[in-house]
Amino acid sequence: MSILKRKFNPEDDLGFGYQPVLKNQPLILQDGSINVKRKGLPFFRPYDNYNKLITMGWGKFWLLILCCYFTLNVIFAFIYLGIGVENLNGAEGHTAYEHFWDAFFFSAQTISTVGYGHISPRGMAANSVAALESMLGLLAFALATGLLYGRFSKPTAKIVYSKNLLVAPYLENNMGLMFRLANLRRNTLIDLEIEIIFSYNEDVNGKILRRFYQLELERKRVSLLTMNWTIVHPLDEKSPLKDMTQEDLKRTEASFSVLLKAFDDAFSQTVHSRTAYQHDDVVWGARFKPAFDRDENGRIVLDLSKISDFSETELPVKAEIA
Amino acid sequence: MSILKRKFNPEDDLGFGYQPVLKNQPLILQDGSINVKRKGLPFFRPYDNYNKLITMGWGKFWLLILCCYFTLNVIFAFIYLGIGVENLNGAEGHTAYEHFWDAFFFSAQTISTVGYGHISPRGMAANSVAALESMLGLLAFALATGLLYGRFSKPTAKIVYSKNLLVAPYLENNMGLMFRLANLRRNTLIDLEIEIIFSYNEDVNGKILRRFYQLELERKRVSLLTMNWTIVHPLDEKSPLKDMTQEDLKRTEASFSVLLKAFDDAFSQTVHSRTAYQHDDVVWGARFKPAFDRDENGRIVLDLSKISDFSETELPVKAEIA
Amino acid sequence: MSILKRKFNPEDDLGFGYQPVLKNQPLILQDGSINVKRKGLPFFRPYDNYNKLITMGWGKFWLLILCCYFTLNVIFAFIYLGIGVENLNGAEGHTAYEHFWDAFFFSAQTISTVGYGHISPRGMAANSVAALESMLGLLAFALATGLLYGRFSKPTAKIVYSKNLLVAPYLENNMGLMFRLANLRRNTLIDLEIEIIFSYNEDVNGKILRRFYQLELERKRVSLLTMNWTIVHPLDEKSPLKDMTQEDLKRTEASFSVLLKAFDDAFSQTVHSRTAYQHDDVVWGARFKPAFDRDENGRIVLDLSKISDFSETELPVKAEIA
Amino acid sequence: MSILKRKFNPEDDLGFGYQPVLKNQPLILQDGSINVKRKGLPFFRPYDNYNKLITMGWGKFWLLILCCYFTLNVIFAFIYLGIGVENLNGAEGHTAYEHFWDAFFFSAQTISTVGYGHISPRGMAANSVAALESMLGLLAFALATGLLYGRFSKPTAKIVYSKNLLVAPYLENNMGLMFRLANLRRNTLIDLEIEIIFSYNEDVNGKILRRFYQLELERKRVSLLTMNWTIVHPLDEKSPLKDMTQEDLKRTEASFSVLLKAFDDAFSQTVHSRTAYQHDDVVWGARFKPAFDRDENGRIVLDLSKISDFSETELPVKAEIA
Repeated sequence: MSILKRKFNPEDDLGFGYQPVLKNQPLILQDGSINVKRKGLPFFRPYDNYNKLITMGWGKFWLLILCCYFTLNVIFAFIYLGIGVENLNGAEGHTAYEHFWDAFFFSAQTISTVGYGHISPRGMAANSVAALESMLGLLAFALATGLLYGRFSKPTAKIVYSKNLLVAPYLENNMGLMFRLANLRRNTLIDLEIEIIFSYNEDVNGKILRRFYQLELERKRVSLLTMNWTIVHPLDEKSPLKDMTQEDLKRTEASFSVLLKAFDDAFSQTVHSRTAYQHDDVVWGARFKPAFDRDENGRIVLDLSKISDFSETELPVKAEIA
Repeated sequence: MSILKRKFNPEDDLGFGYQPVLKNQPLILQDGSINVKRKGLPFFRPYDNYNKLITMGWGKFWLLILCCYFTLNVIFAFIYLGIGVENLNGAEGHTAYEHFWDAFFFSAQTISTVGYGHISPRGMAANSVAALESMLGLLAFALATGLLYGRFSKPTAKIVYSKNLLVAPYLENNMGLMFRLANLRRNTLIDLEIEIIFSYNEDVNGKILRRFYQLELERKRVSLLTMNWTIVHPLDEKSPLKDMTQEDLKRTEASFSVLLKAFDDAFSQTVHSRTAYQHDDVVWGARFKPAFDRDENGRIVLDLSKISDFSETELPVKAEIA
Repeated sequence: MSILKRKFNPEDDLGFGYQPVLKNQPLILQDGSINVKRKGLPFFRPYDNYNKLITMGWGKFWLLILCCYFTLNVIFAFIYLGIGVENLNGAEGHTAYEHFWDAFFFSAQTISTVGYGHISPRGMAANSVAALESMLGLLAFALATGLLYGRFSKPTAKIVYSKNLLVAPYLENNMGLMFRLANLRRNTLIDLEIEIIFSYNEDVNGKILRRFYQLELERKRVSLLTMNWTIVHPLDEKSPLKDMTQEDLKRTEASFSVLLKAFDDAFSQTVHSRTAYQHDDVVWGARFKPAFDRDENGRIVLDLSKISDFSETELPVKAEIA
Repeated sequence: MSILKRKFNPEDDLGFGYQPVLKNQPLILQDGSINVKRKGLPFFRPYDNYNKLITMGWGKFWLLILCCYFTLNVIFAFIYLGIGVENLNGAEGHTAYEHFWDAFFFSAQTISTVGYGHISPRGMAANSVAALESMLGLLAFALATGLLYGRFSKPTAKIVYSKNLLVAPYLENNMGLMFRLANLRRNTLIDLEIEIIFSYNEDVNGKILRRFYQLELERKRVSLLTMNWTIVHPLDEKSPLKDMTQEDLKRTEASFSVLLKAFDDAFSQTVHSRTAYQHDDVVWGARFKPAFDRDENGRIVLDLSKISDFSETELPVKAEIA
């Protein structure tokens, strides 16, 4: 029986064990990020560089590029000064300050391979450094431009989810837990698959454990996302939520994690999107308003700003269950 | 029973609900695009830029590149003029007009890193701007060239579909709905999977609802597309089309959406192709002519221009069904 | 019954219909290419350019790059000549022939953005063309270098297959059709899946039709290819080959198409490999020799040159089947 | 029966046959590499170049780039010397040694397209070689920069596995073989699938054969790796390990190969990770210590340095099995 129960309760589904959620710190936040602090990592983690550079903000990224460019030029300026500024033909500065900037701008012209030539290297040392610098420049800029384009062309899903989970009438005399989503991008999403994991704290002989259930859905896959998609979990006898009230959800710090997978036609790649609903996002007795309209030609017009709109409604009395 | 019916009727398969099609505005057009207008989007959508730049026409793309190049040079030309054209060594213009073009062409030589050097920057300000511009030039051109190559190497399926859906004799005493496809590209398509979704308007107690059915196919997967492939939906007892006439299809604004998925050997990626047939694309009583021939060595010669060719034929009288 | 038979006979598995093979022109050749000539294609097929440029031979590719570079420079040389060679500062040629080469080399220095500057443009026209040329140069070289790297980094499986298909003793008192494969690359192949399609001509009431059977394999998937892999089709009662002799295979122009799919660890992509065996590649009564050895430390040494080696052996008399 | 046994014993699962492991030379090493020497390969293997260049160490890679750059410049220096150093305008060297370095640095300025212009080519021959060199330079640097970025952005899983396999108490009165893993990277891993293959030498009538078993797991897939994941193989009646002692594992040179597959959110690609445990990595009677903690807000803090920590414990006496 213990094994049976364990199978029905996939508590490792999110890689967590039985650990309860405390003080409203859910496992997954609304923006899809994971709410776990990590420590004990090695100090130097070169394998995270690419990830950091691809996911940091644009402002930070440009600043970093600028700083690297400036720093590299400063370093090479000092190297040229070390060799002697007299080895830079055409450098006309007279003071140490002017010498530095001559060397600095010569370095910038070399590293970007623009090479005007009004300043040019003379002698073995300066020529060698310049040859090396232009090579390094090409490689360094390849990293920078690769990252720039990688950031720009990174395949990411831009899914808009309804703000709330609704407990709505569903079929005849029944109820369902519902939310909606739509694609904010112009591209087409194909082969969408969705998974909802419901978790809550359970009191087992005084010990609080976290339980995880994958919710059964009316349909968990669509071939093509043309409009909005309403995902429905029927609140029938098989549902782990069937006897829960709004109070229960709050008390057990219930949360709903949503995992979406789709194929993106523009990027020709699989994209993922995540979100989470907490207990206070659930609205009991409501129904989504249609998010689309018809234009004069009968063509459907989808209004993405209405994706969260709902109206209150009465829920069926579940006579046959009670 | 209601649930059962719902399961047999996957009305969310295309992300549409029960909305009927009006005035011949099908969900998917023949070129595979989705016939839905979208509004309510945020005005500024940076996440759509890549998609737009990758999918816009080639003429528009080149024009955009040229405009950006021109505009950037104009901006930098004014910056150099602001600093003072006397800081550009070798600029020989005498009038304001000539000064502008000196600055403009110096900018172009800097941004493309060609740097002839007959004009070169002098002093802190001009040198700093030039150093910055060459860096920006490298990054901006990386975006442009990345997009150019991304457009050029974008994996897309070029599938040619037969113009019509045929209702043809199939096996002994039976009929099938058939269409053909072939690969227009030289590359090889592997692991092809096809899905046909049939939809029509149904009158349910005076309310018109759209019904969606995934049609059962003789085979929905082939390992390798070597020639043309004829997709067959048998019009047997299980088919939702079994009692429909040409009239019925027209009245209910029936349409057939075709979704194809394949692995492309040249791009090493999964590609998708879509098309749709409307009720007036269906030909009753016809049979595809062979699209291939033999050369003198017994080798098969596929003629892609014949992919839509059919000849009229008589349909079997469905005695046993009637 | 007809439908049943049809299901067991996946004649569309390779996208061919019932067409027999004539004069030893199998569907798939030994190198995995498809033996079908295509015609009726539109004359201008831009969508095939990438594919052609990626798959053409290296010699042809380099020649093409060189020709494009030369041609572009010739075109721009004539444009500069048209503008007047006096607008190229530093061009010292005196004859028309020398003028041309001055313009040509100035163009080469501009298009490659090397821009020495001993020749430099003067005046609006020459400067404009030079600015445009350096931009085009950056874009054109981006295509060339993208293709170069795309060709270099194209994920392709390099699988070595044994030259022959062996009919070998298998388990107790039974026989199997076997061949071997190994990875020629240093990389690791993961999640390998193999499919063998056996096809032959069948005489159905005087009409010759091609039949296709997917052969059942002892195992059609391995998690990891560490050494060589011997693929076995047991010649038991379920095999379509169970009553066939070497003569039958020849008469019916039998052929065996092999489709392999794997995940390549180095390229992080799925790769495919194909080959085909014809009836005269089948050896009756043979057994593969081990392709590996042990070194002094007990470590296994795989000898890829022995992958096709076999020794003759006696086949079991199939008493219980006869 | 023989076939049945064979099916239950997937001895080709790793592409190995029945070959026993000798002298502690397992098939897969702890770092996931495959312990097989390969020979009989063709001498010239261009298809392995990319793989080698992508996977070699960073030091070696930089050295290789530098050597190529140096060598190319030396070659072109000799070509320019062959043409005659008087064809390089601005080269001021007087001795053969100085001539060489003038030519060398001119080559470096050409190949990197920096082109200062204080040295510039004169005449057909020098100009032609320079034009060719700048083209080659662009292409060669494209390969170098492509490889650099390819290495930098290569999607690889950085999984930390616990150092030991534990035989731990599991559920009521039972035992399980357990190990843990966590993600060292900042990125998110989705759709993780794990496979463990247990192999050992078996004495079959005096002949030692290698047996392979895929171990059944409590769960072999998680949707999302948020924390650490403990993989459990229950040592119940179905386990091939159920009657084995620590002694048996050693005698039979038992080993456990772990194959992990996941989707990496940052790289948008599938990544793989492998490891292996040998018999002496198994600890009998131990239990993993929690690797995480709570901070003051109830948020979970994962300590990756504790992933291997365990404490000794007593194992249940398997009364009902004995």
